Amino acid sequence: MLMLSPLVAWADDLPSWNDGATKQSILDFVAAVTSAGGTDYVGPDERVAVFDNDGTLWGEQPMYVQLAFAFDRIKALAPDHPEWKDTEPFKSVLAGDVAGVAASGEKGLVQLIGASHAGMTSDDFTKIASDWIGAAKHPKTGKSYTEMVYQPMLELVSYLKANDFKVFIVSGGGIEFMRPWTQRVYGIEPENVVGSSIKSRYEMTNGKPAIVRLPEIDFVDDGPGKPVGIYTHIGRHPIAAFGNSDGDFQMLEWTTSRPGRSFGLIVHHDDAEREYAYDRQSHIGRLDKGLDEGPKRGWTIASMKSDWKQVYPQ
Amino acid sequence: MLMLSPLVAWADDLPSWNDGATKQSILDFVAAVTSAGGTDYVGPDERVAVFDNDGTLWGEQPMYVQLAFAFDRIKALAPDHPEWKDTEPFKSVLAGDVAGVAASGEKGLVQLIGASHAGMTSDDFTKIASDWIGAAKHPKTGKSYTEMVYQPMLELVSYLKANDFKVFIVSGGGIEFMRPWTQRVYGIEPENVVGSSIKSRYEMTNGKPAIVRLPEIDFVDDGPGKPVGIYTHIGRHPIAAFGNSDGDFQMLEWTTSRPGRSFGLIVHHDDAEREYAYDRQSHIGRLDKGLDEGPKRGWTIASMKSDWKQVYPQ
Repeated sequence: MLMLSPLVAWADDLPSWNDGATKQSILDFVAAVTSAGGTDYVGPDERVAVFDNDGTLWGEQPMYVQLAFAFDRIKALAPDHPEWKDTEPFKSVLAGDVAGVAASGEKGLVQLIGASHAGMTSDDFTKIASDWIGAAKHPKTGKSYTEMVYQPMLELVSYLKANDFKVFIVSGGGIEFMRPWTQRVYGIEPENVVGSSIKSRYEMTNGKPAIVRLPEIDFVDDGPGKPVGIYTHIGRHPIAAFGNSDGDFQMLEWTTSRPGRSFGLIVHHDDAEREYAYDRQSHIGRLDKGLDEGPKRGWTIASMKSDWKQVYPQ
Repeated sequence: MLMLSPLVAWADDLPSWNDGATKQSILDFVAAVTSAGGTDYVGPDERVAVFDNDGTLWGEQPMYVQLAFAFDRIKALAPDHPEWKDTEPFKSVLAGDVAGVAASGEKGLVQLIGASHAGMTSDDFTKIASDWIGAAKHPKTGKSYTEMVYQPMLELVSYLKANDFKVFIVSGGGIEFMRPWTQRVYGIEPENVVGSSIKSRYEMTNGKPAIVRLPEIDFVDDGPGKPVGIYTHIGRHPIAAFGNSDGDFQMLEWTTSRPGRSFGLIVHHDDAEREYAYDRQSHIGRLDKGLDEGPKRGWTIASMKSDWKQVYPQ
C-alpha cells in the first residue's frame, strides 16, 4: 500500500506549479485560513478570492481579447456605416492601425465600445459575444482564446473552490463579454463576475421586454475602481487577490489591508518562449509599481517562466 | 411506523402557509423545475430566484425602515449642523414632519441620503447601520425591525435554497444598508444582495486604504431599474420573482418573460389586524397595476390575511 504524505497530497492540487517558494506560499496561506481553531482561521463565508482576468487567467497580448472582438465587430458592421472610412477611430480600426486607434484616446475608445458593444439587447449581445469567442483565433498561436487560459491558474481556482473559497473575477474587461463563458472555461459562475460595464435600459418593444445596451460608460473596474467594484458587487473584504498588472495594484492593496491573514499574488509575464515577456514598459498589462512594491508588502510574485510547469491546458 | 405521504412532506416545508391555491402554486412550480427529465426542468445553475425586500421580506409601514434610519441619523448629526434647523429637508426631519420631507421631492431625498449615508468609509457605514438596526424599534409594535420579517417568506427562502435555488434580494433599498444583516436574518449572503447605491471612491488616508462613500446617487434599483440591476449583478435571467408593489412590476414581468417555466408572486398586504392593509392608494408600496395585471399574467397573488398562518417569527 502506497503511503502519501500530506505534502504530496497538497502538491497534487497544483500539479502545474513547480515546487518552490511561490507554490508553498499558496499552500501555506490556504492551510492557515482553513485550519479550524488556528489563529488565522477564516470561516467559509468570508473566504472570498478575487482574480483579475486579462493577463491573470488568460492572455492579453498582443492586444486585449475584447479589443480584438471590438475590432472584428466594427469590421463586420462597416458595410452599414460608409462614413467610418473617414472617421476616427473607425478609420484606424478598418485599416488595422492599432497605433491610430490608441491615438484617438479615451474618446475614441468610448466611441468604439458604443459602436461595438451597445445598441442591441442583452440577449443579442450575449449571442454575438459567444459566437465570436467560439470562432476567433489568436493571431500568433492560431488557438481559440479560451484555449489560451493558464492551466496553473485553472488549478488554483479549483483548489480554492475545493477549500470552500468563493471565487470571483474582478476585471477591467466588460462584465457581459466574460459572463457567457467563464463558467465553462474557468468554473466561475456568471454571477461571480465583476467587470467594467456600460449602461442599459429596460424597455418594451412590441409587447416584449428587453434590456437594451446603451453607448454610455457605467463603471470602469480598473485600478482604484476594483476595490469599488468589489464593494458594490460582493460586499465583503476579499482575503486573497490575484493579478498581473498595476491595474490590479489597488485590488491587492485593499485585499491585503484587512486585519487578518491575507494573500496577494502577481503573475509576472517573463516567459517570452512559452507566452510573452513584458512588464515595466508594456502598454498592455504594464507591471511597474507592483514589481517594486509587491515584495515589500509580502505579495508573492509568480514567475511564469520558473513557477509554471506548463502554461496552457493540453 | 408513521408513513408520510409526499404531500405532507411538502407541506412541512412551508408550515406557515395555509393549504390552498397560493401554496400549491409554489409547490407545483418548484416540483416542475426540479424534476429531472421533466419538460420544465431547470438545472441548479439557472435556478435563480429574486426577492424584493421592503414589503416582501419585511415590513415597510408606516415608513421604509431605511428612511427611519436616515431620520435618526440626521437627528444624531444635527448638533454639528445648526444650519439644518432652517434648511429643508432637514428642518422637516428634525420636526418629525414626514409630509414636509416628502414635499422636498427627489432633490430633498438626495440631500437626505447624502447627509445620512455618505461622507464616511464603507467600514464606518457598516458599523453605523448595524448599530442602528440592532437598537431601533418599530413605532407601533416596539419590536426590532429584524423581528418584523415575514415568517412565511423566510420559509420560502429556505425551501428554495433547499431545492438548490440561488436566492437574491433585488431591492429599491440601499445595498449596503441591507448587507450587514441579510445573512443572519434571511440566510441570504451579502454578495447576493442587489439594491440601490451611491457612488464611492477608493482612497488612501494616512497610508491606510479606505472606500469612501460619496453623496451622489449611483443606481436606483426600482421599477425598470430592477431588471437592469439583475442584469448587472447577476447576469442570469431569474426563473422566479417575489414582490409586493408596482416597483416590482418590471422585475416580475422580466422574470416571467423567459421562454421556459417561471413563477411570479405578489404579496398583497390585506391584513390590517396582524400587519397593515394597503394597495392602490398607498404612498409606500403602492400596488395598483400589479393587482390588475398580475392575475392576467399568471402571477400568484398571495393574501397575507388568508394565505399566511402567521406573519412574524415567534
